[in-house]
Amino acid sequence: MPKPVWNATQLPIVQAPMAGVQRSRLAAAVAGAGGLGSLPGAMFDAAGLRTELQTLAPLMAQAGAPYNVNFFVHQTPAPDDAAEARWRARLAPYFAEHGIDPATVPAGAGRQPFSAQIAEVLEEFKPPIVSFHFGLPAPALLARVKAWGAQVWSSATTVAEALWLQQHGADVVIAQGLEAGGHRGHFLSDDLALQSGTMALLPQIVDAVSVPVVAAGGIADARGVQAALALGATAVQVGTAYLCCDEAETSALHRAALRDPEAGAAVLTRLFTGRPARGIVNRLMREAGALSADAPAFPTATAALAPLRAKAEAQGRTDFSPLWSGQNRSGCGEPSAARLTRALAGL
Amino acid sequence: MPKPVWNATQLPIVQAPMAGVQRSRLAAAVAGAGGLGSLPGAMFDAAGLRTELQTLAPLMAQAGAPYNVNFFVHQTPAPDDAAEARWRARLAPYFAEHGIDPATVPAGAGRQPFSAQIAEVLEEFKPPIVSFHFGLPAPALLARVKAWGAQVWSSATTVAEALWLQQHGADVVIAQGLEAGGHRGHFLSDDLALQSGTMALLPQIVDAVSVPVVAAGGIADARGVQAALALGATAVQVGTAYLCCDEAETSALHRAALRDPEAGAAVLTRLFTGRPARGIVNRLMREAGALSADAPAFPTATAALAPLRAKAEAQGRTDFSPLWSGQNRSGCGEPSAARLTRALAGL
Repeated sequence: MPKPVWNATQLPIVQAPMAGVQRSRLAAAVAGAGGLGSLPGAMFDAAGLRTELQTLAPLMAQAGAPYNVNFFVHQTPAPDDAAEARWRARLAPYFAEHGIDPATVPAGAGRQPFSAQIAEVLEEFKPPIVSFHFGLPAPALLARVKAWGAQVWSSATTVAEALWLQQHGADVVIAQGLEAGGHRGHFLSDDLALQSGTMALLPQIVDAVSVPVVAAGGIADARGVQAALALGATAVQVGTAYLCCDEAETSALHRAALRDPEAGAAVLTRLFTGRPARGIVNRLMREAGALSADAPAFPTATAALAPLRAKAEAQGRTDFSPLWSGQNRSGCGEPSAARLTRALAGL
Repeated sequence: MPKPVWNATQLPIVQAPMAGVQRSRLAAAVAGAGGLGSLPGAMFDAAGLRTELQTLAPLMAQAGAPYNVNFFVHQTPAPDDAAEARWRARLAPYFAEHGIDPATVPAGAGRQPFSAQIAEVLEEFKPPIVSFHFGLPAPALLARVKAWGAQVWSSATTVAEALWLQQHGADVVIAQGLEAGGHRGHFLSDDLALQSGTMALLPQIVDAVSVPVVAAGGIADARGVQAALALGATAVQVGTAYLCCDEAETSALHRAALRDPEAGAAVLTRLFTGRPARGIVNRLMREAGALSADAPAFPTATAALAPLRAKAEAQGRTDFSPLWSGQNRSGCGEPSAARLTRALAGL
């Protein structure tokens, strides 16, 4: 196997950062088994991130393992009252059904982009790898990250994005095939027709850039890892298979959907955040149309759904929950993140 | 490498049948190099197929090689005057631009489904492999094919389709990942959101069925072949990379688009036939919307486009031409089908 780029003694397995369903415990378990553990930073504010890193950094130091902290780099949109009103009108029947007064539901952004405040927290901990989704931060912010020697990774969904990332300072490109769960990382074009499967995307990115390429999308077992390495990847990033591990914080309802062969397919939807992301079909996606333009701009779609999700989940229903998943959930059978990591590496 | 299923002495490389862009010459060249050559039957009537097989069968006998003849198994739709009128109304500005009187343009089906007449021709030649797209023929017709000992292959785009094919008599399942060029083979659901990339689809089909699985979609070089074999495929089917071979009948305009890195992406479109198929974006796709519902049912969309395509191509334009291509056209550099076949196999 080719040497991973972060530590020559490690396995070429990266645990994908998955905001909302995992924190330090999963990352530490993966690191302990020889993989690269990742902490998703998108849903923390600066204080929350500091608290979490106060847990994670000592665990990683103890394990002698590098780790990855991941952030979104979107622009928070200006408040758009018309779009918010349209979204609430679309959801009005659901509010009525659940006895929720929409006037009591706050608007707002559920996810924070990478910022100077966040960079300041990271400077205290100096994580060895910082990864981004939706491009890269502005040059001054990126320079701050590079200043403590961090490797910068980011996701590309097309060859053009991979070249852009290399030109703008990414040390590693993650080739995110269309099979991947969660948010699509595209940032140069919103045209979903341009998104490719891993089998087509990965070798074309490997040939186009000179930096190491990590493969993501559709990889759920050792066969997938071997396939990605054959296509030229230096390592693979796996998300879905880790969602059912004991060390993840995935809800019981989400785990049940992942493990249920009768649950629907995992398809792209804009409904939960405003950007296309892959998750298992549920009631909202069926009724509103998974890619409906009624959802307002990322990340403002989430706020209005929050009370609906809470009410439904309290009743054991996933009607309004994002059930993030890739197209291959066959790996969701292993409860131990350490065993999963080693199994992915063929050990 | 695992043994191919059709002949233990052959390479695990199947040349994809590609209606309209290749005939016997390509199939024979691939067979001569140790791969499996395929003849697309969808655009022949019975007499035309007989003539073509009178060329192909002796070539294959001489080479001691098996071969594959491929057919579509759609239902020809009942004539739908309203749909045809809507389609012609959509195309009216193009007819006017090109000085074509639409009243002179015949309607009709450009592709014939597998039929008793075709089976009768095949019985004369007894091709060792008969493959189908869009499912399988009716049981009585399928029994005729099996009666001379032919292996029956068909494409699956989901695990459910793979199981259906196995249950209904397919000897080999082709796992067609979303990356593939040309027509999507789905037949149990028209929902394109259910279509998976090869990396996710292939191992799940391999695990679900007991028959051999051939991988298709996104495979353009020896790395892709190795990846597909690692995922459990018995062999791979490659289309796009063969399109630029000298032995194919691909038009010069189509070849130029395949080889032009500045040509657009290959996306799914309904416009050229009425069913979703992957081709490089051109003027009609941009202006009409690649998946527009204005195109009438498969395969009736083709007829009205034929004179537009002819006029434009005569002027060196691909505005109305189907530029079939998968998502990975990096293999379109090798003019020799024999060398390409051996290179795919890593020789």
